[in-house]
Amino acid sequence: MNNPTTTFAAGLEGVIACATRLSHVDGAAGRLIFSGHNAVTLAQTKTVEEVWFLLHEGRLPTAEELSVFRAKVESLGKLSTAEIALVKKARGNEPLSAFRTAISAIACHRGFKPWLNRDVKEVEAEVLQLQALAPSIVEIIHTGKAPVRKHKNAGYAQRYLWGVTGKRPSADNLRAVETYLILTIDHGLNASTFSGRVTASTGADVGAAITAAVGTLSGPLHGGAPGPVLDMLDSIGTPENAASWTQAELSAGRRIMGFGHRVYRTDDPRSLCLRGVAEKQNGPRIKLALKVEEEILRALKAKADAKALTTGKPVRALRVNVEFWTAVALEHVGIPRTLYSSTFCTSRIIGWGEHVIEQLRDNKLFRPLSQYTGPEVPESAF
Amino acid sequence: MNNPTTTFAAGLEGVIACATRLSHVDGAAGRLIFSGHNAVTLAQTKTVEEVWFLLHEGRLPTAEELSVFRAKVESLGKLSTAEIALVKKARGNEPLSAFRTAISAIACHRGFKPWLNRDVKEVEAEVLQLQALAPSIVEIIHTGKAPVRKHKNAGYAQRYLWGVTGKRPSADNLRAVETYLILTIDHGLNASTFSGRVTASTGADVGAAITAAVGTLSGPLHGGAPGPVLDMLDSIGTPENAASWTQAELSAGRRIMGFGHRVYRTDDPRSLCLRGVAEKQNGPRIKLALKVEEEILRALKAKADAKALTTGKPVRALRVNVEFWTAVALEHVGIPRTLYSSTFCTSRIIGWGEHVIEQLRDNKLFRPLSQYTGPEVPESAF
Repeated sequence: MNNPTTTFAAGLEGVIACATRLSHVDGAAGRLIFSGHNAVTLAQTKTVEEVWFLLHEGRLPTAEELSVFRAKVESLGKLSTAEIALVKKARGNEPLSAFRTAISAIACHRGFKPWLNRDVKEVEAEVLQLQALAPSIVEIIHTGKAPVRKHKNAGYAQRYLWGVTGKRPSADNLRAVETYLILTIDHGLNASTFSGRVTASTGADVGAAITAAVGTLSGPLHGGAPGPVLDMLDSIGTPENAASWTQAELSAGRRIMGFGHRVYRTDDPRSLCLRGVAEKQNGPRIKLALKVEEEILRALKAKADAKALTTGKPVRALRVNVEFWTAVALEHVGIPRTLYSSTFCTSRIIGWGEHVIEQLRDNKLFRPLSQYTGPEVPESAF
Repeated sequence: MNNPTTTFAAGLEGVIACATRLSHVDGAAGRLIFSGHNAVTLAQTKTVEEVWFLLHEGRLPTAEELSVFRAKVESLGKLSTAEIALVKKARGNEPLSAFRTAISAIACHRGFKPWLNRDVKEVEAEVLQLQALAPSIVEIIHTGKAPVRKHKNAGYAQRYLWGVTGKRPSADNLRAVETYLILTIDHGLNASTFSGRVTASTGADVGAAITAAVGTLSGPLHGGAPGPVLDMLDSIGTPENAASWTQAELSAGRRIMGFGHRVYRTDDPRSLCLRGVAEKQNGPRIKLALKVEEEILRALKAKADAKALTTGKPVRALRVNVEFWTAVALEHVGIPRTLYSSTFCTSRIIGWGEHVIEQLRDNKLFRPLSQYTGPEVPESAF
């Protein structure tokens, strides 16, 4: 009964759903681009605000523009007393579910309306408000208290790390977090970004779009794995156990957290960059983590080779994904593992916001079709 | 740089994103099917609970099953004192934004966790909780007070109408609302349902999925039009003004609310059914509404014919969509126009929940691709 020109694409795999100038995941070459720049170079040398400006404007800021933008974001990052109470009320067992409720509540409290037929500049200003608030929201959800005072011009990454650890971070820890936040700021049409664009495409307020994206990020198949990676390292315990643990898990057919990605056909450049961060940190986990990575990669390669032999077709082994080394690097800077998804959310909300703006500037409603597999209805019933 | 097997499908038009046994929109024939039944017949003869059971079980209930299911849903429809306080706190200017916040807050308060690797029956029970709560949540958001007491076994539709109008509804008004709620309970892979499935596909908790769907519904291109349809009828005022108003709007190139749909190529069967409801109601608006529909359809037809003459290709005129006659029918039963989207949400949340269950029973992550349109990066940058 479907139109003959339709295509069935389970999970929308291989379907290009929209164009974006924000980022490009070249899965075959293992490259990630943010608006004309190598994302890894940006992550190693820039601040969050510079990359945020780049995504928004399509070019890096001058020193003066950066100074103005940093001040604006810092000022927008403050919540009113009533809003702090709303965020406290949103708290629960899952920090990211609380974040979802808090963003929704603040957008509603501020009276955000559907963007359709409104001045784009006004809607962009609403997006910037939500992006800028993330560090304060996570801090309130984590501590249950109003954000502590930080020194002026601390910057987005520093305000975040300071807020969740309760103290002014060292330069090394700040650089590690700055690198992580930049690396994960955007990533093509990943599930949460896609979800935000789908919601925005109906003309809904930008609060609805960001709320949807937060909820989508909270799934273990998307943003939920870095915490469990540490649980895995804990349960392996020592480098000597890595090989036997891996064999046992794969024999039992269990999924190993931190490995595999839909788009990358080779190493994820973010993983390589974050492994570099972790190696430089050289913390107590590093030996274990390197050994576990090695054993798991070896076992996954052997599994792929065995399958290739049976099927006669080449089989690609899973590679380490961004979550494995994220876990190691974030643990070292003192971010509690319960907040890894919230940390991811604090960077990705910047990408979500820019995608929502891109969507509303050239909107087309996302309205795919479904294939009906229920019982047929006799003609006489109509 | 994209894979050669990829397809660009703006707005995902013509792409089948998943299979469903729940409903089928046959846009060419103008037919809507719910799990093997003509949706219009169900809407004219059944209660919400019967169709809900049908979607969930794939068959209509026996009298005894229906009685058990009604009692269960009624019991699950009650909020605790703490939850009533959460919903009150969520209130704002936009009832549907408040609903979005309230659903998110309740799911978080009840400790809903990602569904991945959990017992499906347990997750289904969480979905049923959120579906059953909708009438109470809308009532609290509308009145600012705890739900009033209704008589036992009132039923979902009656509890909703009673809650938002503050009085026990007449049999005719109840039937009109029952018909509306059933007709709009599900509709293939519409944008909000799709959004809920996208969020669920990452393994996120069902609260995240329903919250995303509510936000997506709030866009004027999806669930937001019935209120504005009445504003339009108000501004036209009398049947005599219909023709000149229509000409002026079309000449100015403005979009007319309540007309046009992505999927239907002929009359939307829901519109025809609701026009029947409105004609039977025979309220003070009916003459105006019939005349306005006639004039707009005539003008849209003339516009399509003129375009066909210029382009030499057949052009399909827009038809009336479900929102036009929804507006007239819901006004007559006393539902304030600010609550039309919330009324839609109260029926569609049942469909969202069933789609989320279907998604998690046979999950595949929705992860489409994007086409990069930003600046290229020189090889030397990698």
